Amino acid sequence: MDLSVQSILDNLLGEVWFELTFLLVVSLFAGFLFSRFGQPRVIGYIVVGVVIGPSVLKIIQPGEGGASGLPESIQMLAELGSIVLLFMIGLECDLREIYTRKSIAIAIGGVLVPWGAGFLVAGAFGYGEDAVFVGATLVATSVAVTATVISELGLIGKPVAYAIVGAAVVDDILGMVVLGISKGISAGTIDSSGLIMLVIGAVLFVVVGAWVGSKLLVRIVFDVQISGYRRKLPLSGFTLVLAIAFLYSFVAELIGISAIVGAFVAGTAFSGSALRDGFRKGMQYLEALFVPLFFVSLGVVVNVMDMLDTFWFVVALTAVAFATKIIGCGIPAKLVGMSSWDSLAVGIGMTPRLEIALIIAYYGLSTGIIGADLYSVVVAMGLLTAVFSPPLLKWALKKGGHDITAAG
Amino acid sequence: MDLSVQSILDNLLGEVWFELTFLLVVSLFAGFLFSRFGQPRVIGYIVVGVVIGPSVLKIIQPGEGGASGLPESIQMLAELGSIVLLFMIGLECDLREIYTRKSIAIAIGGVLVPWGAGFLVAGAFGYGEDAVFVGATLVATSVAVTATVISELGLIGKPVAYAIVGAAVVDDILGMVVLGISKGISAGTIDSSGLIMLVIGAVLFVVVGAWVGSKLLVRIVFDVQISGYRRKLPLSGFTLVLAIAFLYSFVAELIGISAIVGAFVAGTAFSGSALRDGFRKGMQYLEALFVPLFFVSLGVVVNVMDMLDTFWFVVALTAVAFATKIIGCGIPAKLVGMSSWDSLAVGIGMTPRLEIALIIAYYGLSTGIIGADLYSVVVAMGLLTAVFSPPLLKWALKKGGHDITAAG
Repeated sequence: MDLSVQSILDNLLGEVWFELTFLLVVSLFAGFLFSRFGQPRVIGYIVVGVVIGPSVLKIIQPGEGGASGLPESIQMLAELGSIVLLFMIGLECDLREIYTRKSIAIAIGGVLVPWGAGFLVAGAFGYGEDAVFVGATLVATSVAVTATVISELGLIGKPVAYAIVGAAVVDDILGMVVLGISKGISAGTIDSSGLIMLVIGAVLFVVVGAWVGSKLLVRIVFDVQISGYRRKLPLSGFTLVLAIAFLYSFVAELIGISAIVGAFVAGTAFSGSALRDGFRKGMQYLEALFVPLFFVSLGVVVNVMDMLDTFWFVVALTAVAFATKIIGCGIPAKLVGMSSWDSLAVGIGMTPRLEIALIIAYYGLSTGIIGADLYSVVVAMGLLTAVFSPPLLKWALKKGGHDITAAG
Repeated sequence: MDLSVQSILDNLLGEVWFELTFLLVVSLFAGFLFSRFGQPRVIGYIVVGVVIGPSVLKIIQPGEGGASGLPESIQMLAELGSIVLLFMIGLECDLREIYTRKSIAIAIGGVLVPWGAGFLVAGAFGYGEDAVFVGATLVATSVAVTATVISELGLIGKPVAYAIVGAAVVDDILGMVVLGISKGISAGTIDSSGLIMLVIGAVLFVVVGAWVGSKLLVRIVFDVQISGYRRKLPLSGFTLVLAIAFLYSFVAELIGISAIVGAFVAGTAFSGSALRDGFRKGMQYLEALFVPLFFVSLGVVVNVMDMLDTFWFVVALTAVAFATKIIGCGIPAKLVGMSSWDSLAVGIGMTPRLEIALIIAYYGLSTGIIGADLYSVVVAMGLLTAVFSPPLLKWALKKGGHDITAAG
């Protein structure tokens, strides 16, 4: 009888309740470990996924085409995690607050420059149509990483912080449109007229979806919630909001963009709801279960060998990820009147690409648009930008004369 | 192009995000409708499942062997719903409060009489070893239905209310042991020594699981929670509690009893935790998503034709369900010194069998222990007891001279 840890684990994994326990405990451990070193817990989840995956401990062996080697049922929970996460990011995007000239100028530069440069550098390393998809992963800033750093430095409410977060939110929205378009091009299943239709569809979906949601659905949910309170069904509004998030995910898939775009747009629609705080709170409990599963499953698919084989591409893409946001956001920031150091800080603040980049990459992998090698490169880029951006941001803000309160 | 509602729905269902939207919206609607008629929303969920299932609208067609016709991924979410639900029921079972002589006497009568009589009546209708399983579905009182009625009548804290709820909780615990035993007998895969082992295993699991949980795991979770707060990972304790619930589910399956027993025992272990209120609150958000899916999926599997074919068996089993709790709980209540009307009220208060009975029946169906006909009979019995018990309880309490405050 083989009683090695490996063989015992092999027997137990596949039992869905054990596997859930295992994944939650290791991700909890990783979250604590990484937060001790001042890193976002998301990085911990991904790294622990890599560690239990095929590259290191081989506890979980991925299958073909982005299958993580996790049971399909757990994969479903992980996908639900991506929907919950994007809905929550959308919920923080109060559309009335972020449509400032400054934010939009910074965001547009921060979308076009990385998208184009990402495409070019992937092309230079020999990739074809999938290079467009690599560009798309460079578009969306990680609001989570940047907002956390700004809050730790005690800069919330300062103009420079506002410019960064506002622009990061706008480029999340534009990033979703870019994802829809890039998907059409990279999949190679679309001609130029189809592409135009898709662009129109993506833009219409974001605009109409946000409008219908914020004007009509917010009110219906509010009425249902009030009526639910009276009938002692206090979470009726929450259930309905979830249903709406799933409906938007479905419609987004139907018109050819990704489900997560739908969840994001649904979130933005409810950003102005009087019930937002309650929804946020409830979603955090769903997040506590699903989001670690999601990020661990992203890590499990990574093959460190692929990262090493493509070492120079990883270095080049990471350099491009930094340079394009610093240029693409910093120059517009300077043009709209910010100081040079603040403009640099804005550019650096926009560099971390984590959750959305990885979700996009995983989406590309599981639909066969990109291969396992490109996926691992994007994950490496995402981790590197998230790790190195915060200290650089602190440095630029200090140089710019900001009073940084936290010890950080 | 076929544009009938049926054909459009057929095309859309199977798309997982659409199906989730559909199930959540119909269950929300049913919850409101049934609460308007003073019925528990759970009944609404089950009925709407029956309505969209093969008997009425045929929107969802179940497959073989208890497969609900829902995609496997949604089935997983429904199962997660049963784990969350049993954990929450366990969380309300504060072991220190319910071990009174009265509760235990009432509960033991309320376990043995229905189990035995259920076995006999199913045997009389021609069933064999699966008759034991039918008996098991008669054991556990629906704490949810009874507690709701008591609270609506303004009787919380009165001795009669306390006797009912206390005994209902104790018989939940005994019901879990009975499930483990019945499963072994009904599956026919166990000899008498195996059965003894299983009984010992089930009892040991409940006792040791609750003890280890309440002495050791509660403390670990508390420490993790405190430490998580400090590191701005505020839901760390909640994530760990979920992991523990899944671990208990896994261990319960491993020793041959059902996963839901594990979730229930994990819940009882945390019933004394200082963090219980927070866990309850968080679980409610998971409940808002998963539990409707679970009950709807229970309803979808019901075939009304089966219910009609077995009409007399349904009538007999429902009568037995009422009689056995009234006798099995009422007589011990009288013996420990309650008045005759109060003893009757205690017996009636114990009659509703809903969530646990249905979960047990569904478990039996999906593992092939019972067939689709027996499943439908148990669901019918569960719905009938839940609908008729509350008005009877009100009547007995009024006769017993209780001041019933609510209009009810």
